[in-house]
Amino acid sequence: MTIRIGIAGYGNLGRGVESAISQNEDMELVGVFSRRNPEDVKLLNGNVPVHKMDDIQNFTNAIDVLILCGGSKNDLPEQGPALSAHFNTVDSFDTHAKVPEYFAAVDASAKPNGKTAIISVGWDPGLFSINRLYGEAILPEGATYTFWGKGLSQGHSDAVRRVPGVRGAVQYTIPVPDAVDRVRSGSFPELSTREKHTRECYVVLEEGANPEEVKQAIVTMPDYFTDYDTTVTFISEEELKRDHSAMPHGGFVIRSGKTGEGNAQVMEYSLKLDSNPEFTSSVLVAYARAAYRLNQNGEAGAKTVFDIAPGLLSPKSAADLRKELL
Amino acid sequence: MTIRIGIAGYGNLGRGVESAISQNEDMELVGVFSRRNPEDVKLLNGNVPVHKMDDIQNFTNAIDVLILCGGSKNDLPEQGPALSAHFNTVDSFDTHAKVPEYFAAVDASAKPNGKTAIISVGWDPGLFSINRLYGEAILPEGATYTFWGKGLSQGHSDAVRRVPGVRGAVQYTIPVPDAVDRVRSGSFPELSTREKHTRECYVVLEEGANPEEVKQAIVTMPDYFTDYDTTVTFISEEELKRDHSAMPHGGFVIRSGKTGEGNAQVMEYSLKLDSNPEFTSSVLVAYARAAYRLNQNGEAGAKTVFDIAPGLLSPKSAADLRKELL
Repeated sequence: MTIRIGIAGYGNLGRGVESAISQNEDMELVGVFSRRNPEDVKLLNGNVPVHKMDDIQNFTNAIDVLILCGGSKNDLPEQGPALSAHFNTVDSFDTHAKVPEYFAAVDASAKPNGKTAIISVGWDPGLFSINRLYGEAILPEGATYTFWGKGLSQGHSDAVRRVPGVRGAVQYTIPVPDAVDRVRSGSFPELSTREKHTRECYVVLEEGANPEEVKQAIVTMPDYFTDYDTTVTFISEEELKRDHSAMPHGGFVIRSGKTGEGNAQVMEYSLKLDSNPEFTSSVLVAYARAAYRLNQNGEAGAKTVFDIAPGLLSPKSAADLRKELL
Repeated sequence: MTIRIGIAGYGNLGRGVESAISQNEDMELVGVFSRRNPEDVKLLNGNVPVHKMDDIQNFTNAIDVLILCGGSKNDLPEQGPALSAHFNTVDSFDTHAKVPEYFAAVDASAKPNGKTAIISVGWDPGLFSINRLYGEAILPEGATYTFWGKGLSQGHSDAVRRVPGVRGAVQYTIPVPDAVDRVRSGSFPELSTREKHTRECYVVLEEGANPEEVKQAIVTMPDYFTDYDTTVTFISEEELKRDHSAMPHGGFVIRSGKTGEGNAQVMEYSLKLDSNPEFTSSVLVAYARAAYRLNQNGEAGAKTVFDIAPGLLSPKSAADLRKELL
């Protein structure tokens, strides 16, 4: 018997989930749900039906876990609470500041309906969060540092694209090597925003746009760029497509602590990802397995990665895990 | 109300636990138990009583969690099952091959008595095991590599000390940088034992011992050294004390996988520890918190790190964790 998975929303993340499910023998994709016209949605493998999102209520008995692949800004705040009343769900809600509010809304919907909903799954929030927790629980006297990159930041790329005169753009976030080295050395440096990351923008100009004006508009943009050392490089449309269409990302969580008479102890977690959405999707699929098991076990309501024992993510039995991986 | 901790066995690990408890405000050390004469046991802080191990049954109501700090070879196989019938326990049993048998013995003792016993806690087994699990659950198509070091290996140091003509010795395990780099690059190399680690021995000779004979006895020792490139450096008693009395260790768990159309995804967990026993002790103390909470929750029996949700390790509430660390 396989775990029957549905995908709600078919963008980069939905495609990644479709692909990840094919790597997991205990899971089966049974349907994709989209707000687009189903005939316009072309799946990677194309061997499951695409349905209208509005028809999803007809599938409550056909799906064990629904993976929500919509965005955190507009889709999930509505879909998370609505769908977790009818399905076990996993999502990648990543607006850190709104997590408590979102958790409460999903919990209020899932729990009374006996559904299990794991929110904010992925690598940050997600695996990075777990490592921040392990770090401070194990080394209470210390400091935690999160560095992101080198990676393409979707939010910052969008911000650059909104600048008048910009036709296309990507933005990479890059950790400052010297800052990473200082943290790894076991010291606890106080690092400003500017000291931790730099930002690199690759921009295609609209015809007739003034490069200097565009550059100034970018590097002085509040919240996004003013607090960073930002470089802007103008490239052609062809270069943008050829050299900047991949979506790499990654980063580090470093806990630097002291024990005993001042012994330095450094814990580091790092990811180097060729495809950010495919990796996030792979994490979502592993947590779908946990959502299914928790629900089988009667554990309803909203959960986060902090509530999920590692063993629930693996297809192996507890006895095999102890024998093979402990 | 604090969690009342007892320490069973007072060597390097017991000292580390005493020290770690002082970093955790929600915990309190209430007693140390030793097979030695209590008057001969000198504590780091010395503000709790030392009792005879034989008297430990008198303290079942005074201790919430007993941390077993004995060795895996001779102490824990007996103490684990015996003590988990009367106390919630945490231990660092690290004989990988005997974990299933030990788990069964502790479970058979703890469960019918309503006690919770978390076995094989530390960094390997322990945090490294968790990362091996996360790696293969999230990236099913890939390979996992564990490297140890640079670090002092107790078992190998003991083996060198047993060679005739050796008065004192330490052995360091060192990952081969080229092998680590190849794994980090996202490839899946097949690595032999010799390609992954080298071993460095620092040896003080007995008077009159033949250096060449000692060296040959070490580098050809089956199981311990024949499969490795081993160097032997002769030093003086003073140099051994001055330069080799710290107990550093660490290592890496790297999961290298592929998603989608062959995108490389690399997850890496690494530890760089000035004091191996103090770090292991810090992990034990965090899991003592989890043992206490699981027991309060009625979850009795043997557990491993795979069964423990990350949130149980932190003194913070679930709501604070979501707000601050997710």
